[in-house]
Amino acid sequence: MEGQKPLKVAVLGCGVVGSQVVRLLDEQAGDIAARVGAPVEIAGVAVRRLDAPRDVDVPSDLLTTDALGLVSRDDVDLVVEVIGGIEPARSLILAALENGASVVTANKALLAEDGPTLYEAAEKAGRDLYFEAAVAGAIPILRPLRESLAGDKVTRVLGIVNGTTNYILDKMDTQGAGFEEALEEAQALGYAEADPTADVEGFDAAAKAAILASLAFHSRVTAADVHREGISDVTSGDVRSATDMGSVVKLLAIAELVSTGSTTGGGPAEPGVSVRVHPAMIPRTHPLASVREAFNAVFVESEAAGQLMFYGPGAGGAPTASAVLGDLVTVARNHRQGTRGVGESAYADRAVLPMGETRTRYHVAIDVDDRAGVLAAVATAFATHGVSIQTVRQEGRGDDAQLVVVSHEATDAQLSATVAELRDMDIVHDVTSVMRVEGTDE
Amino acid sequence: MEGQKPLKVAVLGCGVVGSQVVRLLDEQAGDIAARVGAPVEIAGVAVRRLDAPRDVDVPSDLLTTDALGLVSRDDVDLVVEVIGGIEPARSLILAALENGASVVTANKALLAEDGPTLYEAAEKAGRDLYFEAAVAGAIPILRPLRESLAGDKVTRVLGIVNGTTNYILDKMDTQGAGFEEALEEAQALGYAEADPTADVEGFDAAAKAAILASLAFHSRVTAADVHREGISDVTSGDVRSATDMGSVVKLLAIAELVSTGSTTGGGPAEPGVSVRVHPAMIPRTHPLASVREAFNAVFVESEAAGQLMFYGPGAGGAPTASAVLGDLVTVARNHRQGTRGVGESAYADRAVLPMGETRTRYHVAIDVDDRAGVLAAVATAFATHGVSIQTVRQEGRGDDAQLVVVSHEATDAQLSATVAELRDMDIVHDVTSVMRVEGTDE
Repeated sequence: MEGQKPLKVAVLGCGVVGSQVVRLLDEQAGDIAARVGAPVEIAGVAVRRLDAPRDVDVPSDLLTTDALGLVSRDDVDLVVEVIGGIEPARSLILAALENGASVVTANKALLAEDGPTLYEAAEKAGRDLYFEAAVAGAIPILRPLRESLAGDKVTRVLGIVNGTTNYILDKMDTQGAGFEEALEEAQALGYAEADPTADVEGFDAAAKAAILASLAFHSRVTAADVHREGISDVTSGDVRSATDMGSVVKLLAIAELVSTGSTTGGGPAEPGVSVRVHPAMIPRTHPLASVREAFNAVFVESEAAGQLMFYGPGAGGAPTASAVLGDLVTVARNHRQGTRGVGESAYADRAVLPMGETRTRYHVAIDVDDRAGVLAAVATAFATHGVSIQTVRQEGRGDDAQLVVVSHEATDAQLSATVAELRDMDIVHDVTSVMRVEGTDE
Repeated sequence: MEGQKPLKVAVLGCGVVGSQVVRLLDEQAGDIAARVGAPVEIAGVAVRRLDAPRDVDVPSDLLTTDALGLVSRDDVDLVVEVIGGIEPARSLILAALENGASVVTANKALLAEDGPTLYEAAEKAGRDLYFEAAVAGAIPILRPLRESLAGDKVTRVLGIVNGTTNYILDKMDTQGAGFEEALEEAQALGYAEADPTADVEGFDAAAKAAILASLAFHSRVTAADVHREGISDVTSGDVRSATDMGSVVKLLAIAELVSTGSTTGGGPAEPGVSVRVHPAMIPRTHPLASVREAFNAVFVESEAAGQLMFYGPGAGGAPTASAVLGDLVTVARNHRQGTRGVGESAYADRAVLPMGETRTRYHVAIDVDDRAGVLAAVATAFATHGVSIQTVRQEGRGDDAQLVVVSHEATDAQLSATVAELRDMDIVHDVTSVMRVEGTDE
């Protein structure tokens, strides 16, 4: 090993993740060298401020504020980008690839917004662009999707890919907390940021859903294609209602292959994909239901393998750095041998369906007059729009009553029309909750 | 794609797995070609009898009983071995590699008994030998271990890698069934074979443990190195006792890095590995505890990533074929590009420790006289051998009593000596159960 020419890696960013990458590159140097077939040495670490406090000691001669200068150096073979955000990360990755370096990034926002630009640059440069850490932190999920399941046909991916929202929903479930209370607890513990919008409103999960869908279905899906609903409207009542039906509320990132069911063409409809993020009720017996606290998990269904689940920590400096370094070892081996790993695969070119065409089941809670004929009227409203009812539970509450309806599969458009009609009915006081039901066998 | 020269694959065996491999190669041909970059066509299918009934239609001109002739053909690029067993599988794989083919196999018994012979042949031939399907069926676990976690340090692997025994133990837990009754049910449902020895006595799990340990710790571990205990001695009482302490009994394949604690040397002891298969009590809150029926799961602990779990179907024709084909796509890509994936990595060369030096916790149930001083005498026996007690529960049962002791960590040798002394004591009627406790934080 000593005789092998070292590979030089530029690390862009030395925050929570970058500092752990630097630490592990040092502590695991011997193992990494053995696994790559050559030593991997740090060429430099690009930071915003040279004198900022950090979690790791970096020799001062390695630190630089000139990130572009660093990735443009002749001796840099590999670049790790852990700055995050769109710019300057995009420009730096493009410059690194043009310069002949192979790149590992954890940047979900950039990949979900403008992945194809990066994939094409990597293709043109003949270099690797790996990004396991961009989805579900330390959990190996992208490599299994694009390599282990390459001989199979993935039909659905259901992911708990945001730890903040899973923590909040778990506290609402186990402690009966309201959303605001659970959010405050998550903030106090550092699981949620002061401005929790990106997590709570599903933006973070939507970026990951786009990446998962792209890989699972060999198609280009960007964050803008993802239907997104957050958890800030989830109430204690929803959570209790889920419990009553043996379910639990989770924020799911969903990517599934669906027959478009289009009736305009002649032959069988070409399958499209539905990609969405929203809270949903899943049965407590579903493997995802037992994912607690801030853990992440991705549940994958495929034709031959059946049901698989990948579980672990979805964030944090060391776990994310583990995923970055796993990629780095592969990319370094390839770089050394002058080969490339699996690049972008978008040959299937599937269309992303509008949310209105997405079919799923629904849990609808309706406050109604407590008198004869109400159930018949409500059932008629569902039937009018082609939404078949699986179960209805009626609870008297003094002058009025609550109906809880769980439907069979229907499109989002059918359900929306049903809810609009219900809201116009005199006997209906309010539609208090509409939530999708996922992870059931129908 | 049409312009690319097809890769030719020889399939050895057309049983439960092989027939699914043949089916998927046909049904997924377009996707596989797109992912490989060239079509993958079947060169031939080697079977024992040409006229045997099978689950898939194979064109008769592809069938042959001459497996060696098939793998020796000039036009064969890839070989899938799903015959199982040691011979002729080993000779055929060696012949295929010598002939310049890349190989995918699901043969856990062969890999665990004689892996190094195969790895060396692959190395010498400059070809790939992949075997994801050999452990935990469809679950991607070997690729994550040797690639995704390549920048991390794996410290422990706990696997439920045998569906038959998990099914039996699950029935004992959920239905209060005895071992024999649960085994009969498993046999009736096809989860257990008429001669269930390989599963029930842990031989199948031991082969998988050897493979997992080799990959996790970059060392050579064979089935003969694995300490093995099956589940035929697990009683309803053990299962109830586990329930009483909030635990559940699982058959675990365990591979862990341990400090040898040797006092003969000067510096810090070089870590060795403990590799073993035995029933153990794990807390019901542990992610492995929720693995039900015949499902498999592998729980991995590493320094940076923390705790990961991989879950799914551990057997079956289609799931196993999914894993085979995932490997086949990778191997075909490499073969086409004239490169190799990750080969054997045994650089760490860690020693496998004798079971006597393995440290874990123990649950010991002891029938004793119901009189004063008994607890003190029993506690003294534990203390004499350096086994520290965490909890004792005492239950009077008429003339005699039962003591249930849960220890802190101790070596197997210390515990064995303790049990031997207990059995010699007049006040002890019987040591009715000794079971290891795993998956706790100590």
